[in-house]
Order: sequence, then structure tokens, then C-alpha cells
Amino acid sequence: MQTRDLAQAVIAGDRRALARAITLVESGRADHREAAAELLEVCAKSGRQALRIGLSGTPGVGKSSFIEAFGTMLTGQGLRVAVLAVDPSSARSGGSILGDKTRMERLSRDPRAFIRPSPSQAELGGVARRTREAVALCEAAGFDVVLIETVGVGQSETLVAGMTDIFVLLLAPAGGDELQGVKRGIMEMADLIVVNKADGDLKHTATRTCADYAGALRLLRKRPQDPEGFPKALTVSAVEEHGLDRVWNEIRDLAEWRSSSGHLASRRAEQARGWFEEEVRQGLLARLTRDPVVKGEMDRLGQSVEAGDIAPARAASRILSQIKG
Amino acid sequence: MQTRDLAQAVIAGDRRALARAITLVESGRADHREAAAELLEVCAKSGRQALRIGLSGTPGVGKSSFIEAFGTMLTGQGLRVAVLAVDPSSARSGGSILGDKTRMERLSRDPRAFIRPSPSQAELGGVARRTREAVALCEAAGFDVVLIETVGVGQSETLVAGMTDIFVLLLAPAGGDELQGVKRGIMEMADLIVVNKADGDLKHTATRTCADYAGALRLLRKRPQDPEGFPKALTVSAVEEHGLDRVWNEIRDLAEWRSSSGHLASRRAEQARGWFEEEVRQGLLARLTRDPVVKGEMDRLGQSVEAGDIAPARAASRILSQIKG
Repeated sequence: MQTRDLAQAVIAGDRRALARAITLVESGRADHREAAAELLEVCAKSGRQALRIGLSGTPGVGKSSFIEAFGTMLTGQGLRVAVLAVDPSSARSGGSILGDKTRMERLSRDPRAFIRPSPSQAELGGVARRTREAVALCEAAGFDVVLIETVGVGQSETLVAGMTDIFVLLLAPAGGDELQGVKRGIMEMADLIVVNKADGDLKHTATRTCADYAGALRLLRKRPQDPEGFPKALTVSAVEEHGLDRVWNEIRDLAEWRSSSGHLASRRAEQARGWFEEEVRQGLLARLTRDPVVKGEMDRLGQSVEAGDIAPARAASRILSQIKG
Repeated sequence: MQTRDLAQAVIAGDRRALARAITLVESGRADHREAAAELLEVCAKSGRQALRIGLSGTPGVGKSSFIEAFGTMLTGQGLRVAVLAVDPSSARSGGSILGDKTRMERLSRDPRAFIRPSPSQAELGGVARRTREAVALCEAAGFDVVLIETVGVGQSETLVAGMTDIFVLLLAPAGGDELQGVKRGIMEMADLIVVNKADGDLKHTATRTCADYAGALRLLRKRPQDPEGFPKALTVSAVEEHGLDRVWNEIRDLAEWRSSSGHLASRRAEQARGWFEEEVRQGLLARLTRDPVVKGEMDRLGQSVEAGDIAPARAASRILSQIKG
């Protein structure tokens, strides 16, 4: 299929075309990159945009159950929901996130939902690029909500927050005032803290955990782009499907507030510019490993450096002047 | 002064020349980079090498006092000691590490010692390059020991461990079994854990903290390059100058063991190769901001991306093909 035909099929809402398009943007091959750029440009012309929600939660907080219940509630309201994953560890673990769609059995069979596991790429930069592009494709395909989930480790939250409109932190009930070791930086990124498992024996603990976080959030400075009361902490029970509507209402209210103030549009414009700059950096660095001549010279000079025959800085300046020429 | 004359003055042990040479390698200017590469190449011909020791410790563990006492002990044995600092926060804080030499009053007046604060550069990559090059200059200047200190935050330990022969983690006495939240990754980098402040009221706590760490270290797998018993945990008192000789003996024993097994040489060769590759990456990325034509085009396209006139990936591929040509 030609790239333009593929783009048209994506825009027409063809799910298999969407899956193929995402596979294309995941490829690192130079000719695929060129085709992907064209695909994205045609898709961008659709002008469609979804609400982009980032969702972070460490293993064990019930992320899959939450997405299953939350996504099903949204599709029940007639909304089309795409779920993407950013898992920096997927290359090693073989894709722990969403690798097993059976954990979201209902949602994966839902005609209004589209679930795509994290690509198994080694570098976070590569996963980031693919995810940004997959979001753009899902938007062109007419999805109303794009949910990007990530595990609560390292830099992946920053990355997901940098490509979404609203960032939700999912937590499990925890004993006492330990606040589960959530880093201040991650707290500061969260628009909504959602304490899951507010059911059965854990209900009381969940309520207390939520109050602890609400208190912690009050210590953070209110962001100028937000209405009074945000960021907020809420409890839900994914298994009892309780509190999910409130989460959705809060997300929608916040998105509407930010949209009417112009903040949403300017945030997206900044994110797009950041994406462009990152893409240039990655593309430049990729030449070192992809161009066989440069790669061969890197290897040869690297061996000379190891052997002590040439100083590292001199070897580097030699290769840099070659790339220039 | 010509670059070659400067190199000769460094090799002759001229301290002012060494300070000037480090200032030169700290510069980001293209002509300075070229001169720095030449300088480093001439200096490398001296063939001199120092024992490179990395020292990490969070504020409050008494790092300055330890370096003052430890360094003075070494110079008292006739050794020449250079102290460099890697402080990723120095750009913001104005150089919190070693900015105030009065904290090492004796050592800074010691003719056998050379102390250089962390450069105030924003990016860790830039600080890393400069530090590697400063180490090479100190070695050419005939220093026997180069101590590179860093604060215990983020990636700076990994960076310092990647440019040293031996990595020492300095800690303060801590209550109970909390192990001061030292990350496992940092524990695994440490060759020696040194619990400072084993004096006065804290002496008992220091001994217990040391035992806790010794226990934790035993849980780590022994590294093939190390003799039995490493990594080790020790207590010292910098203010009472107690235990410093034992730290030095352990460092020397470990260095000799690794040297005779060939590990030290192969580790340095690998580090040099890594330095070369990193230098190439940094040099390549620097073109985006230093070349006025490329920078202007980046700005222009960045604005178009922000305005939504061109897709980020397309804009990136456009600029990449320009840089190629």
C-alpha cells in the first residue's frame, strides 16, 4: 500500500491500517523514516485532536484493571479510546506492559477501543519518538481519548508528561505516612493522584492514603494554568468500578479550563517544538551507527583509542571533521 | 603562549600553566577545542599516569574535611595530590562544591596539592568532558593521585565511576538499619564504603552503620576483578585524622591487585574509548547550537512547528538533510 493510501485508511478509521501505520513509525530504517514523515504529514491534515492523558503507576497498583474499567466506561459513553504504552524496560523484559492483552480482556475486544503494547526498543528516545507519532496517528484515526500508560520508573514519567495534556498518577493504598516514596518531581507533574483499590479491606487505608496525598499536594504551589483545587487526590476502585466517573469529570473539567485559557494549545505547541528538536538530535546521533562508512571509522578509531595510539579528543575531532565534509 | 609551550609548562609541573590548561579545556569555543585536542595529545606523550580515585558523598557527610585530612596525609608521604570536582548543580548554585577553598585551608596552601572547583557549566556532558581532560592534564603535570569528588545525586556518580580506577562512597553515621537510602546501583559501584565522623558521640553509631554496610556489601556478588573481601566498609574520623591510613592502604592494595591482573589497564582503555564516543556525540549535537546557519534554520523551523505549519518529523528530516549536504 502506498503511504498516502495508508494515511487515508487511517483517517477513515481502519484499525488494521492504524496498526500497520504504527508499525511503520516504529521502524528505524531510513526509507521507513521518510515514509513515516509523509504519513504523519498527511494525517496531520485531518486536524483531529484527542484528549491526551498520561497515566503512571508502578507494578501492583492495578494499572491494567484501572485502564480496563476506565476505558470501558468511556467507550460506554460513546467515546473512542486508544491505549498506548511507554515501557523503557520492555526491551529487556520482553514487554511487560500490555504484552498480555488478556489483562484487559473486555477493552481489547471493544470495537471503540484500540490497545497497542510498548514497542521493544532499547532506547527511551526511540520509544518516545514512536509514542508521539503513534498518538498523532490515533488522533487522525478519530480517537477521542489517547491514554498513554507508563511504569513509575526513572525518566519515563517526564517523557509521558511531555507528550500529554493531563498527567494522572495511580497509586495503591499504603500504610501510615510513608507516601510510598513518590518523588517530589513526580508529584509536581501530577494533575490528579488516584488511589486505587478503595474496596474491601483496603477501603479505609485508601481513604487515609488519599488524604495524606491531598495534604502533600496542598504544600505544592498552585500552577497558574489550573483552577482552584488542582492538583487533586481521589480514590477509586477499579474492580468495583467505583469513582471512575469522578476521575473522568475532573480530567474533563481541567482540560476544558486549560483549553479555554489557551494553555492547552500553547502546551501542545511547545511539546511539538520539543519533539522536533529531539527528533533532530536523535537523527544526528543515528548517523554514527547507521552510516557504514562512519561506523567503520568509529570502530577503527575506537580501537586506536583503546590501544592508546591516539588521544580520545583528537580521535573525536578527526571523525567530526569527516562527518562535516 | 602557544599550545605546545603550554603543554611543556604543564609537563614541567608549572601550576599556573596547569590552571590555564584546564581553563582552556573548559572552553566550548571551536578554536579552543582544537587547541585543547592538541594540548591533550602533547600531554599524553608524557606517559604519566596517576591513581584516579572517585569520591562520592552527599552534603553533610564531611566530604571537605575528609579530603582535607586525607589529602594532607598523602602529601605528607611525599605524594602529589590533585582534587577535581564534578558538581552537576554548580551552574545553578554557583558552584557549591569546592567553590570555597577555605573549607580545605591546609590542602589549598599545600605545595604538593592542587584543587580545582567544578566548572559552572549547565550540562553534565560538558562537565564530564572537562573533568576527563583535566584528569589527563593533572597526570601529565606529575600528580600521583587524582581525587574526583562528586555529590551523591543522580547520574554524577556513574559519571565519576566511569573515569576513575577506584570508587569510594563516603557516608555519615545513621540511625538503625535505614542504610541512608543509598541506591543499590551506587552501592554496586563502590569499591570502598567509608563511614566518616567515627568520633565523639557518633563513634558508636558510626561503627554500627559500618557493620550494617559491611553486611549489605556481602550480599552483593564478588566482582571477578577484586581480591577476597572487597568491596569493604571502614570507619574514619576526618577531624581526629583517624583511620585515614587504613583507607589509603586498602585503596593501594586494591589498585595493585587490579594492576597486576591487567584489569586496571583494560578498564582505562575501555573508559578512553567511551570518552571518545561520547565526545563525538557531544560534538555532533553541538553543531545544532553553534553553527549560526543551522541554528537559524532550527529556530525558523521550530517556530513553524509551534504554529502547526509543518509536522515535527518532517521539519526534523528537512534539517537533517541540510546538515548532511
